[in-house]
Amino acid sequence: MPLLVVGSTAYDSIQTPTGSRDDCLGGSATYFCLAARFFTPVKLVSVVGKDFRDEDLALLRSHDIDTEGLEVAEGKTFRWSGLYHADMNTRETLDVQLNTFGHFRPKLPPEWVDTPFLFLANGHPETQASVLDQATQPKFVVADTMDLWIDTTKDALLALLRRIDGLIINDEEAKQLSGEVNLIRAGNRLLELGPKLVIVKKGEHGSFMFHEYFQFALPAYPTDDVVDPTGAGDSFAGGFMGSLSEAGKVSIGRLKEAMAYGTVTASLDVESFGVDRLSESLRSDVESRYQEFLHFVSL
Amino acid sequence: MPLLVVGSTAYDSIQTPTGSRDDCLGGSATYFCLAARFFTPVKLVSVVGKDFRDEDLALLRSHDIDTEGLEVAEGKTFRWSGLYHADMNTRETLDVQLNTFGHFRPKLPPEWVDTPFLFLANGHPETQASVLDQATQPKFVVADTMDLWIDTTKDALLALLRRIDGLIINDEEAKQLSGEVNLIRAGNRLLELGPKLVIVKKGEHGSFMFHEYFQFALPAYPTDDVVDPTGAGDSFAGGFMGSLSEAGKVSIGRLKEAMAYGTVTASLDVESFGVDRLSESLRSDVESRYQEFLHFVSL
Repeated sequence: MPLLVVGSTAYDSIQTPTGSRDDCLGGSATYFCLAARFFTPVKLVSVVGKDFRDEDLALLRSHDIDTEGLEVAEGKTFRWSGLYHADMNTRETLDVQLNTFGHFRPKLPPEWVDTPFLFLANGHPETQASVLDQATQPKFVVADTMDLWIDTTKDALLALLRRIDGLIINDEEAKQLSGEVNLIRAGNRLLELGPKLVIVKKGEHGSFMFHEYFQFALPAYPTDDVVDPTGAGDSFAGGFMGSLSEAGKVSIGRLKEAMAYGTVTASLDVESFGVDRLSESLRSDVESRYQEFLHFVSL
Repeated sequence: MPLLVVGSTAYDSIQTPTGSRDDCLGGSATYFCLAARFFTPVKLVSVVGKDFRDEDLALLRSHDIDTEGLEVAEGKTFRWSGLYHADMNTRETLDVQLNTFGHFRPKLPPEWVDTPFLFLANGHPETQASVLDQATQPKFVVADTMDLWIDTTKDALLALLRRIDGLIINDEEAKQLSGEVNLIRAGNRLLELGPKLVIVKKGEHGSFMFHEYFQFALPAYPTDDVVDPTGAGDSFAGGFMGSLSEAGKVSIGRLKEAMAYGTVTASLDVESFGVDRLSESLRSDVESRYQEFLHFVSL
């Protein structure tokens, strides 16, 4: 079933303990698309500036990503600059220039409004809600968020939670939003706020799924060479939503399988700077790593 | 097959965000025994002082724990006092009185020297090695250690690693001992130091098994009410070794199963202060939680 994502497209400048890269293609929607496209074509709703490189547009298009919803606005593309610390688990934002993304008012092309699978990447909750206002037949809607929106626009975020099927959030944010110190309580509390499904991302410690009918957890894929963690969460979401969209249904079994695929696509992402590894990989690479991951977690 | 543990027996005074308890029965060997005894009788080699309570001795004996190797020495029993912080993941040692444990020279009763399954709980590596010197037919030997020994007696610890089959260690200590920041590299590096098996405990994030032939990871059991984490690592080790001893063989399948049983016994431990929950539980409680855990981790 068709899949649509609304989120950022960016140029990132990244420093890690082992190297650095300037102005590489990034953004939540970009990572999401490049992970989801292994499974299904993806419709991208985002905004860039006039400086967006033709080669990057070509890269997206050559990966089964429909860019009809990618607006090219006056001004520059969103830029983010960050520094990762030695353990790769913590990072510092050095600079943010929202540029065209600061005025982003997502508008779904008319022929896309009936897309059944929707992912609302991290953004202002009212902007995320505006996408839902345009969607005519949403079947499965998942959103991401971050500490900024929990701090500054909590009411809008709570209103959004009542309208979506699933929330993907990291562990610290889950505790912050729920007010619970214990992660299990935090996840269960978030379920009470509206979503049928909450996935808590724990980075190198894997992910946890809370659902009204079951709980499920997976470790991360055992990566011994993390080059750049940027985009891991969005690559996880892309694999997760892509897998579900391909299946066309949301059952307990499919949700678990999708979480494992998300784990796999996230693991590919962190093996290179930017989107290199994700964009070079084939579906067969995803499948062989998925099989390897099954061995790794199967009793 | 018979199982023997060498380690501490203690009285602990514990403060957590929700309560406190003074002088409760504890110590690495105690927790280990009370977790392992679900699966197999356990031989305890440890030391206590004259103040050791009759009721605690009775508790051990009534749980299939053979105390013939429990020496009662002049002086007082080892005492530890600690404070857990709000997230229950970090703790502060408030006071340590080694007492009789400070002079502990473990001596295996003659009829125990051929015990095939041995667990060397956290202690001075030379003390741990002295147990191996006495063992005549060790089949599967696993040891625990801690940062103190990595800092102060590293050579003795490295010598021990060349003599044991398995090492159980927490994530920070694994990184410290290996000199690697990435956990996967750390585990693989530790395998090069001697053991065929390294299990890294990650607390609420589960555990990771490194083996010369495979890797395996499990999340922790989803506990929503951690009362007192004291002894979780030793309860994990007890479930792990108890399960293997019961099986009587060490195969890949049995190792994975044992790690899941260790996860279950550790989860029981943290649900009460001290050993209350562990000692009250039945094998049937362990089995029903094991089945529940299988659902939680199975794709």
